[in-house]
Amino acid sequence: MTGWLAIAGLGPGDPTLVTPEVTAALADATDVIGYIPYVARVAPRQGLTLHPSDNRVELDRAAHALQLAAQGRRVAIVSSGDPGVFAMAAAVFEALEAGPSEWLDLDIRVLPGITAMLAASARAGAPLGHDFCAINLSDNLKPWSLIERRVRLAAEADFAIAFYNPRSKARADALARIFDLLRETCRDDRPVLFARAVSTPEETLGIVALTNARAEMADMRTMIIVGSSLTRIIERPAGPILYTPRSAP
Amino acid sequence: MTGWLAIAGLGPGDPTLVTPEVTAALADATDVIGYIPYVARVAPRQGLTLHPSDNRVELDRAAHALQLAAQGRRVAIVSSGDPGVFAMAAAVFEALEAGPSEWLDLDIRVLPGITAMLAASARAGAPLGHDFCAINLSDNLKPWSLIERRVRLAAEADFAIAFYNPRSKARADALARIFDLLRETCRDDRPVLFARAVSTPEETLGIVALTNARAEMADMRTMIIVGSSLTRIIERPAGPILYTPRSAP
Repeated sequence: MTGWLAIAGLGPGDPTLVTPEVTAALADATDVIGYIPYVARVAPRQGLTLHPSDNRVELDRAAHALQLAAQGRRVAIVSSGDPGVFAMAAAVFEALEAGPSEWLDLDIRVLPGITAMLAASARAGAPLGHDFCAINLSDNLKPWSLIERRVRLAAEADFAIAFYNPRSKARADALARIFDLLRETCRDDRPVLFARAVSTPEETLGIVALTNARAEMADMRTMIIVGSSLTRIIERPAGPILYTPRSAP
Repeated sequence: MTGWLAIAGLGPGDPTLVTPEVTAALADATDVIGYIPYVARVAPRQGLTLHPSDNRVELDRAAHALQLAAQGRRVAIVSSGDPGVFAMAAAVFEALEAGPSEWLDLDIRVLPGITAMLAASARAGAPLGHDFCAINLSDNLKPWSLIERRVRLAAEADFAIAFYNPRSKARADALARIFDLLRETCRDDRPVLFARAVSTPEETLGIVALTNARAEMADMRTMIIVGSSLTRIIERPAGPILYTPRSAP
């Protein structure tokens, strides 16, 4: 068997944030599989078949990738950001466990990428410079009560918090509830970063105090980072820097 | 003023995990500053001055970088992994706040990198595939009581937990105390990943049940990831895959 499956992270959008490891895997692949806008980031070439698919079919997509690799194809399944953070890697391993035992002999590699919170943090300064957590606000695959519980405990632990998937049409009021919940325990001036489409031509960055944070400030392309109690803003002519010092008292 | 300061992440070690953005900044820099082993990863060339410095002088190093940039030099200050995660970015911003106001006009950029937990997670599978947190176990800059408190709350929130800097000579028993603390609330079979020197020739990976986790299994080059209650192991001929499913009940 000469096929393989690379679960590759394309980073946040800018081609200069794609690792050479991923670029090499894409150059050697016979098939690229993924959500439509991510596959669109891979340049077509002779000998490469692109398989764009719709959102929310992650398990079908993963099984398809495993099938092709089992047939001897060299398959890259692509995510934006890092494939191991709220992306395709976990879906592939779920499909692997549910699939035929022959798949356990496949050559499968996960190729890391720059995940959205690291890209957003870099653009804003260093809000994740001290202990932090990452929470996916999508409740497609977990109960809302668990999300609320984690947010409460994260605030109690005084983590900076990176929120992935903060907003979708199906959950219009969810983010507003999260901000309300944070306002119960955090000071009004806690800084909140809204980083949209980081590293793309549509990039926007905004920092507001928690008391002014509104769900409408985010859309599906926004990453939100709520600072810890120590997160600070340095004002300067070129724009503010948001960072969390390394020391805690 | 034509100088600039790029706070650049070199990734975990393998050159194919350095982003093209960082490679371009290093090619254009006149000065590279950083901890000795990280500066050693930058190839010398004519016109480039390397400034390796010892560990634990982060603020001096940051001020030096800002001074050089203010003199018109093109300066890259390098960290392994991502500069915004327990690395040089926060130190630079601390030095910036403490320094002369002219420094506020400097061109400063943070260039993200593949941080250790993403590299370790990719090698092992996808243990960070669901909500997770990152905790620095070094107590140089924060009280030990805060570390214990965060670990307790993170376990209560059922995050997967990535531990940076789990071990040093100065804190021989700290990691042992963390494992004891986790054993109070987590099941004995909770998987613990010890990922050492990931993506380098010295890479080793080991997964043990929490009940068998020992501080001696880690050294200063080890990243530890403790799974959530849902983290699973898939056994296969080429070695186990550790992953956290996307769904929570």
